[in-house]
Amino acid sequence: MTSLSPSLDELVDALRRLPGLGPRSASRIAEHLLSQDRERALKLVSALDRAVKNVKHCELCNTLTDDAVCPICADTSRDHSKICVVESPADQRVIEETMTYRGLYFVLMGLISPVKGVGAEDLRLAKLWERLKSDPAVREVLIATPYTPEGDATAHFIAKAVASVAPQVRVTRLARGIPAGVELEYTDANTIAGAIFARR
Amino acid sequence: MTSLSPSLDELVDALRRLPGLGPRSASRIAEHLLSQDRERALKLVSALDRAVKNVKHCELCNTLTDDAVCPICADTSRDHSKICVVESPADQRVIEETMTYRGLYFVLMGLISPVKGVGAEDLRLAKLWERLKSDPAVREVLIATPYTPEGDATAHFIAKAVASVAPQVRVTRLARGIPAGVELEYTDANTIAGAIFARR
Ligand SMILES: [Zn+2]
Ligand SMILES: [Zn+2]
Repeated sequence: MTSLSPSLDELVDALRRLPGLGPRSASRIAEHLLSQDRERALKLVSALDRAVKNVKHCELCNTLTDDAVCPICADTSRDHSKICVVESPADQRVIEETMTYRGLYFVLMGLISPVKGVGAEDLRLAKLWERLKSDPAVREVLIATPYTPEGDATAHFIAKAVASVAPQVRVTRLARGIPAGVELEYTDANTIAGAIFARR
Repeated sequence: MTSLSPSLDELVDALRRLPGLGPRSASRIAEHLLSQDRERALKLVSALDRAVKNVKHCELCNTLTDDAVCPICADTSRDHSKICVVESPADQRVIEETMTYRGLYFVLMGLISPVKGVGAEDLRLAKLWERLKSDPAVREVLIATPYTPEGDATAHFIAKAVASVAPQVRVTRLARGIPAGVELEYTDANTIAGAIFARR
């Protein structure tokens, strides 16, 4: 079949490789951008270009940030004795929005998942172990992975590793109350706030 | 709340304005591109940039194409007596894939929708009326809009307009057989092929 537009085909192909987009939604987005909203397309180009250039992982907590050390790690008014371990920057944002947690974070950028072939070694945890060994100010690691098989496996692995790397550090986990089987970022702020207070 | 990365926020904002993407899927896509797949992000930038520069509407049929006149309109071996009216380039592609239609197309880039505030005047149909008036070779307009309220309203409007602009032209519509209430692009090729042969 003759292609009517190799440029459009290439764009659809690039879009359909994004997580959560199939060929149909990729086509719909591409046609929308090109037929009705070129200005939005150009804005997306520049936002993506700028983000690829500016966004990096925080040297300390691994979150996505524009600075070498993110504003939370750099904030001396925060409680540096607590480190909350989350799956993603989106989950970190949800916890920040509850305004009930004033400690630091460590962002895994993923969860252990045998199904997806993601092992503990893929989570760049070395940075966290180093921090626990070298910074005696840290007293607590609060694990905020979701109550899913992957979140449980990750929490279990981290709890065991902290016990061996830094046995003086207390390990807690967000209390259940967060509905099981649901990703943290789909949970409302009140539920998360309650689980922070009731953490075990 | 302090932003950890204004560049990331800007990207999420640009992504969530795309059709079918909410704030959560936009976050997930942005984090994926920036943490795991910068090469893919750069490919998307260049694909989008190139598409915005190269893709235009065909002067004759309105589809998205890299040329002034698309390869289908320019193909003299096709049957220039038939014009199939479709909602989108994606629908046009589905019909081409059936390999049962060898005529030309007219691509509406939308459907009449009172709910979405889209009227007949938004569909750039003027090009089609001009073609019907000026080209005596055209004998048939085959309307391939879906059997949805919007598709029906659009088909009804076009059929009436053709009857008044070019009464010598036969107006047909894809036979039912295409399941009602379903977008054309979600229909399998066999069903569409059957509906082309049984058109009324
Ligand atoms: Zn940080
Ligand atoms: Zn054309």
